[in-house]
Amino acid sequence: MSPTRIPEATVARLPVYLRALNSLLETEIRTCSSEELAAAAGVNSAKLRKDLSHLGSYGTRGVGYDVEYLRYQIAREIGLTQDWPVVIVGIGNLGHALANYSGFTSRGFRTVALLDADEARHGELVAGLKIRAFTELSVIVREHGVAIGVIATPAVAAQSVCDHMIDAGIRSILNFAPTVLNVPAGVDVRMVDLSSELQILAYHEQRKAPLSPNPKLDPGVVA
Amino acid sequence: MSPTRIPEATVARLPVYLRALNSLLETEIRTCSSEELAAAAGVNSAKLRKDLSHLGSYGTRGVGYDVEYLRYQIAREIGLTQDWPVVIVGIGNLGHALANYSGFTSRGFRTVALLDADEARHGELVAGLKIRAFTELSVIVREHGVAIGVIATPAVAAQSVCDHMIDAGIRSILNFAPTVLNVPAGVDVRMVDLSSELQILAYHEQRKAPLSPNPKLDPGVVA
Repeated sequence: MSPTRIPEATVARLPVYLRALNSLLETEIRTCSSEELAAAAGVNSAKLRKDLSHLGSYGTRGVGYDVEYLRYQIAREIGLTQDWPVVIVGIGNLGHALANYSGFTSRGFRTVALLDADEARHGELVAGLKIRAFTELSVIVREHGVAIGVIATPAVAAQSVCDHMIDAGIRSILNFAPTVLNVPAGVDVRMVDLSSELQILAYHEQRKAPLSPNPKLDPGVVA
Repeated sequence: MSPTRIPEATVARLPVYLRALNSLLETEIRTCSSEELAAAAGVNSAKLRKDLSHLGSYGTRGVGYDVEYLRYQIAREIGLTQDWPVVIVGIGNLGHALANYSGFTSRGFRTVALLDADEARHGELVAGLKIRAFTELSVIVREHGVAIGVIATPAVAAQSVCDHMIDAGIRSILNFAPTVLNVPAGVDVRMVDLSSELQILAYHEQRKAPLSPNPKLDPGVVA
């Protein structure tokens, strides 16, 4: 890992580059130019070269980047060469989906426990793990050295779950509940708002079609 | 809607501002300064003022922004004052979760159909809708004027589902399958990679804790 801080926008693109490199490796491509990698990642190549220069990766003139080595460099920079035990709280449909999601069980991450407040669910097997009681949270965090907590509860329960996670020593939280969480300094929260992406699509769709498909008359319904 | 294009980074923040404004309204706050709104949205206030100036929203000196009106302006800009019929394909756990997700059934969006290739699932009721056959896609798109297709299938099925959506006339696709989709010009795809956010958290967590919790010895396991 480099000692210097990388710009936040670059950090956000590292997972995209990693995904593109994995795709290249799947098709047995061993070296690539910055243009090829930029195309696979969907960014422009000047931005890609600048981003990778923060990692000290400049490629080789006339050859380009070694795909496998660059993948390793990015994975190491993100921290994926370490083991990150993850706990998921709230095992409804979304929690179920996350527990089974390949990205949550590979690339450095390992889901060690699924917790739910509903007693009726305890003991149920999901993705090879038994659903356990939310009250076991601090024991599990200590036992497994859990670093990252995932909240997949309804919005109304999320702040309380978040507070318990922080009490248990978790300092990085991924929040899927559609509500903003208040946390003390030193704790990172990233919120995944599944409807934001839908809204961004609507913005562009609207500009493709100057005539709205089904215009609403009452702006009051917007909420 | 304004006739000019807004920078893509600003577009991506509009859903964040909308969410912050909704939170303020829930707590009955009617006017706010750019600093208050910026804090609620988690951005700096200079950036917020610049973003909102693209919408022609400058607030009132000494008073700030009218929360309800600004919410309406942003919703209109995104296109949420229109009706956007949505179809979700792939009704596993994630499709289930999305069908029940409030952000997919409010704020301008309306899920009109849930489709799955698995015959055994047809007729099953999810979020008030019966799961229908994937082969009904083009009929449903025509009938409801579907503008946005959501792919929640396994990665292996996603490109084929995407191709069928485009054939049926859908030009905006939200892809939750962990694979990159190839689409012709004029079609927008947004990919939601649920593990990217986890990776960004790991990047920061690693820098909080200089000693790795469980270092791996073999970089080969990174994939």
